[in-house]
Amino acid sequence: MQRIIDFILELDKLKGVTRKTRPLGLERYENSAEHSWQIAMLASSLAHHAGSAIDIHRVIGMLLVHDIGEIDTGDTLVYAEGGWEERKAAELAAVKRIFGLLPEPQGAAFLALWREFEQGETPEARFAHAVDRAMPVLLNLANEGQSWRENGVSHERVVRRIAPPIKAGCPALWEYLEARLDEARQKGWFGA
Amino acid sequence: MQRIIDFILELDKLKGVTRKTRPLGLERYENSAEHSWQIAMLASSLAHHAGSAIDIHRVIGMLLVHDIGEIDTGDTLVYAEGGWEERKAAELAAVKRIFGLLPEPQGAAFLALWREFEQGETPEARFAHAVDRAMPVLLNLANEGQSWRENGVSHERVVRRIAPPIKAGCPALWEYLEARLDEARQKGWFGA
Repeated sequence: MQRIIDFILELDKLKGVTRKTRPLGLERYENSAEHSWQIAMLASSLAHHAGSAIDIHRVIGMLLVHDIGEIDTGDTLVYAEGGWEERKAAELAAVKRIFGLLPEPQGAAFLALWREFEQGETPEARFAHAVDRAMPVLLNLANEGQSWRENGVSHERVVRRIAPPIKAGCPALWEYLEARLDEARQKGWFGA
Repeated sequence: MQRIIDFILELDKLKGVTRKTRPLGLERYENSAEHSWQIAMLASSLAHHAGSAIDIHRVIGMLLVHDIGEIDTGDTLVYAEGGWEERKAAELAAVKRIFGLLPEPQGAAFLALWREFEQGETPEARFAHAVDRAMPVLLNLANEGQSWRENGVSHERVVRRIAPPIKAGCPALWEYLEARLDEARQKGWFGA
C-alpha cells in the first residue's frame, strides 16, 4: 500500500507542469494533469468517430498516463522541431522511474500503455494521438489562437504537424478541424 | 461533431473550479479537473485492493465525470454539514445541462455513470467513493494537514466522514489511513 501512495503523491507533480495553452477565460497556463483529464473525456465523447474499431478503455488508459514523463522532463510545444529523440529517451527514463514506484504488475501495465501510445501503431494508439493533438487546437480555435500567436506558430506548421495523426486516428475530426483552421487563418489567428 | 466540441469546451470550466487542498509544493489551490485525473490514476493503481470484484473501467468512467456538476455549483468541502440535498439537486440539474450538450447516446451514458456514482450502491461506485474520499486525505497527510488546519476540521470529523465509505469500498486503504490519521493527530495536523 505504501508504494501505491508514494506513486500517487509523485503524480501530484504533473499538476505543476505547465503547457503553452491557457484554459478558456483563465489567465494562467494549462497543466498536464488537467489536460490528461480533458482528453480522456474527449476520447470517450468521440469514440464512435474513430477510424477503426477500438477498445475505448485502453485509449483512456493511454491518455491518462501519456504525459507522466513530463514530471521529469517538462512539456515541450508540439511544434518544436528537433531534439525529439533525446526528449523521448528522457521521457522513457522518467516513466520507468515513476511507474517503478509501484508494485510490479501495475507498474508494468502502465508502462505498456505508455509504450503503446508512444509507438502509435495500434488503432487505439492512433485514436489517442488524434485526440491528444486535437485538444490544444480546439482550445486555440476558441481562444483566437492564443498559443499560436504567443509562440509564432503558422497555419502551415500546425497543419503539417497535426493533419497526419488526426486523419489517421479520427478522420471525421480532421474534416471538422481543416475547415475551422482555414477560417482561423482568414481571421489572422496564427503567429507567423 | 459540433455538439461534441461544444461539450468539451464547456468542460474546460472545471479547470477553474478550485478545491480546498493545495497540490504538494504549489501555492495555488487544486482544481477539480486535475483532481479527477489523479483519482482515476489512484483507482487504477488500487484496483486489486477493492473490497469486491469490480469493473475498473466503469470506476474510471465514474471518477472522470463525477465532479462535472461543479461547473455550475462550485466545490463544497466534504466536511461541510447541511445543505447536502439542495446541493445534490443543483448538481443533477448541472450535469443534465452539460451532458445534454452531447448527442443522446453519449450524453445518456455519462449521466448514467454520474448517477451510479451518486447512488453509491454498486461495488464499482463504492470503490470510486473510497478513492475520491481518500485522495484529499493523502494530500493532507503529505502536507501537514494544510486544508484541515485552514478550515478548522478535527480528526473526529474526518474519521466520521470518511471511514464508512473507505471501509466499504477499499478496506485495505482504510486500514492504512486509520494509522496515518492517528499519527497526524499526534503531530497536531488538525484544525480543531
